[in-house]
Parts: sequence; C-alpha cells; structure tokens
Amino acid sequence: MEESKSVEIENFPDSERRAVYRAIYERRDIRHFRTNPIPDDVLARIIQAAHHGPSVGFMQPWDFILIKDSQVREKAKALFERERQAASCFYDEPRRSQYLSLKLEGIMEAPVSVCVTCDYTRADEVLGRNAIPETDVYSTCCAIQNLWLAARCEGIGVGWVSILRPRQLRNILGIPAHVVPVAYLCLGYPTQFYEQPMLASAGWRERQPVDPLIHLDGWSGEPGSGWDNFLDELGNAAPTKTDPI
Amino acid sequence: MEESKSVEIENFPDSERRAVYRAIYERRDIRHFRTNPIPDDVLARIIQAAHHGPSVGFMQPWDFILIKDSQVREKAKALFERERQAASCFYDEPRRSQYLSLKLEGIMEAPVSVCVTCDYTRADEVLGRNAIPETDVYSTCCAIQNLWLAARCEGIGVGWVSILRPRQLRNILGIPAHVVPVAYLCLGYPTQFYEQPMLASAGWRERQPVDPLIHLDGWSGEPGSGWDNFLDELGNAAPTKTDPI
Repeated sequence: MEESKSVEIENFPDSERRAVYRAIYERRDIRHFRTNPIPDDVLARIIQAAHHGPSVGFMQPWDFILIKDSQVREKAKALFERERQAASCFYDEPRRSQYLSLKLEGIMEAPVSVCVTCDYTRADEVLGRNAIPETDVYSTCCAIQNLWLAARCEGIGVGWVSILRPRQLRNILGIPAHVVPVAYLCLGYPTQFYEQPMLASAGWRERQPVDPLIHLDGWSGEPGSGWDNFLDELGNAAPTKTDPI
Repeated sequence: MEESKSVEIENFPDSERRAVYRAIYERRDIRHFRTNPIPDDVLARIIQAAHHGPSVGFMQPWDFILIKDSQVREKAKALFERERQAASCFYDEPRRSQYLSLKLEGIMEAPVSVCVTCDYTRADEVLGRNAIPETDVYSTCCAIQNLWLAARCEGIGVGWVSILRPRQLRNILGIPAHVVPVAYLCLGYPTQFYEQPMLASAGWRERQPVDPLIHLDGWSGEPGSGWDNFLDELGNAAPTKTDPI
C-alpha cells in the first residue's frame, strides 16, 4: 500500500501487551450490576470501539440501539422471563431447578441496554461476502467483542442476554424486518468482576482444556514438521490467576 | 456470587486503558506479510486469547486448525483464486478491474494460517441458545476478535480470507460436515500495519459516520430523557490519528 504510512511494525511494549491480555482474561459476562449511571464520555468511547470493529468488505453492517428508558427495558425483561420459563422445559431435574436458580440477566439494574443489530442491506456489493453470506453477522460479533473489551477497561460490565426471541425483540424495539438483533447487552458498573466465568463457579460447565481443540495442518492425521514445541508452549500461555480451571 | 472473589471493580489505569484502545484502533486486516516464522510462545498466547473468548452457556464451540504445511495452504490459495474470479463476475467496470487489482489475501506469504471453526454439537444442552441458535457462531466470532487483538499487540498481523467456499474448504482441511469453518485467517508479521483500513485507502469504501447508526430508546421515534450530551461525546470519543476519516 504505497499510499499508507506505517503506524507501527513492532509489537506493543510489555506493559501495553499485558494490558490487552488483562482485558481479555478479566472480561466477564456480568449479571450483577450497580445502578449508577454510565458517564456519557465512557459510553461514547465504548460505542466507538465497537464501530471500529473489523467488517468484511468494510461493510460496517451494525446499528446500536441504546436504551435507558425503563418502560422499554421492562418489556425486554418480560420477554426474557417468558423465554426463561420456556427454556426450562427442556431440562430434567436437577438441572432444571439449577437453571431456574441462576441469575441470567440484569436488564433492570444495569442503567443502559445496548442492542447491536446487523443490516444485511448496508452495502450493495460487499467485497468478500460472496462465498459466506454470514460474514455480515460475523463482523457484527467482532464489533461486539470490541465493545466488551473496551467496557472492561473502563470498569463497565457487560452481560449478553441471549434468552430473548429475535422476532418479539424486534417488535419491542421497532427494528425493521430485514435487520437482525444480534445481541442484547446490559451495560453498567458491576458489583464485581467475577474471578471465574459465572457458569463455571456455579458448577454449570467448566472451561475445556485447549489441547483437544487444536488441529495441526488439518482436522486429523499427521501434522507437517515445525510443530514440535507449540503444544508445550500452549499449556503455559494462559494466566492461571483469574482462571483457575 | 458468594463463592467468587472480586478481581477488580475499578477501571484500568489510564495507561492500560489506552493500550486496549490502541489495540482496537490499530488492528487492521493485513494482506501484506513478511515470511518470518511466528515464535511458538507468541502463537500460543494468541490462540489462548481466542480460547478465552466469551461463549453463550460457556459452550466454547470453537476448534483451531493451525496450518504451516505449504501444500495445504496452496490448496486454500487455489480455492481463493476460483472464488475471486467468480466474485468478479458480479461487478461492472470499472469496479470489476478495481476488485481484481486488490490484494485480498496473503495465504502463501504468511507463515501460519488458522481456521477457526464452530461445532454445533459441542454441548448437549446449551444454556442461553434456545431463542437464538446462532449464538454458537456468534461466540466463535467473539473469540476470533480476541485472537485479532492479541495478535496486534504481539506485532502479528491477521488477514481474514472470507473469499473461500465453506464446503470446499471443509474438503481441503478434512473438517467434519457438522462443523462450520467460520474464519480462515492468515497470521504473520506484516510489512506494515496500514494507517487506514486497506479498503478505505484503496478508495473502495469509506468508514461510515457513527451518528446515523445510533438509535436512542428504540429504532425510531423520540428518545426518553438522559441523552442530551451523549451524541456530542460520541463525536469526540474516537481518536483521529490512525483513522483520518
């Protein structure tokens, strides 16, 4: 790219590198919020971080619906309650009682909800979406992760409420039919950032060991050369302090 | 969560906060790589960062296929070439020639490719996937963004090659039919981190202003109170140095 100047070829200094990993490892899905408001400048930085996510073909297919209005949030909460009851029908005891005992959202405590949507029609001709049409939704999710990590470093917790039917959520928020509500997120100051993912500390499900998820040079079969030390390094690469599993 | 201790309630110190935003704003989709190998410890940290992404119901539906073998990468490159030609058929001139002139991947130069997949069958009963079955793919994409940001702070460039048909890519890599190849990523030291997204500097597509993407208290209509200063703050919240648009 002759027209672009180099920003930075080297890696970040150690202190900056550690900060990025800190955000990654201390990010949590939060369901316990304080009701303090989020300052406008903080919320603005978090939304801009999402807007600067990657997108296939630079499509930027996202919209952000920001909700403080408690009447709107009450409708979302009521929709969640219906879906929570419906979902519980598919568990056997004792899993069912455990499911119903978990706190899975903080819609009314958290001062702001953000619904991140994906508009399939954002760009007429999207470079790179030919083979995989879902790349617009994929891009939207990458933007959501930017939001999540920016929020963590601002001390703001994010809780993704996926227990909401998209069709009904569209009605509550007035979202057009061609726009997909990808994520309904609760944002606010948490009572705490949990040391482990909540579903791990609640005994619901554990973090998987990473080794069985790694495939070298193909899904199965013999890897080529050059992988001798990688798996050893992998075992030592994640911090254990915030993730004792 | 009585059983969890608090990790950190406050926001990060300013220097750490800036480092996280630096990763977010200086992350680029890279297509110009040097051929230097990636040290095993660096690659291991990047993969572990992805494995510590969020997942609905703590499902962790991802696998990572890491590819150094040049014969495997050559097959992916050949598949890309077919799809690139096919995609060009849908552009009119002069857009078509411009499309064909763009460098859209660095599969053979970048020393490692990583295919991140999503296994729909990873967990029997996935908490929170009842209403939105796609949350497993959404989770996988959040993990990919972790990988991308970790790579940036390690000085490693990532290029997402979405111009690959999933069915054929499955055959090349031996991926089972129920597993979705979500992203084929090229990883390596870049010749540079572009100052702007490559498609912006190439004049293909510009970054959208964020204001029209913001909706307050619903998709349209009058927002509730409490939003007076937010839009002003939003305009000032993104750095301009690395993103002159």
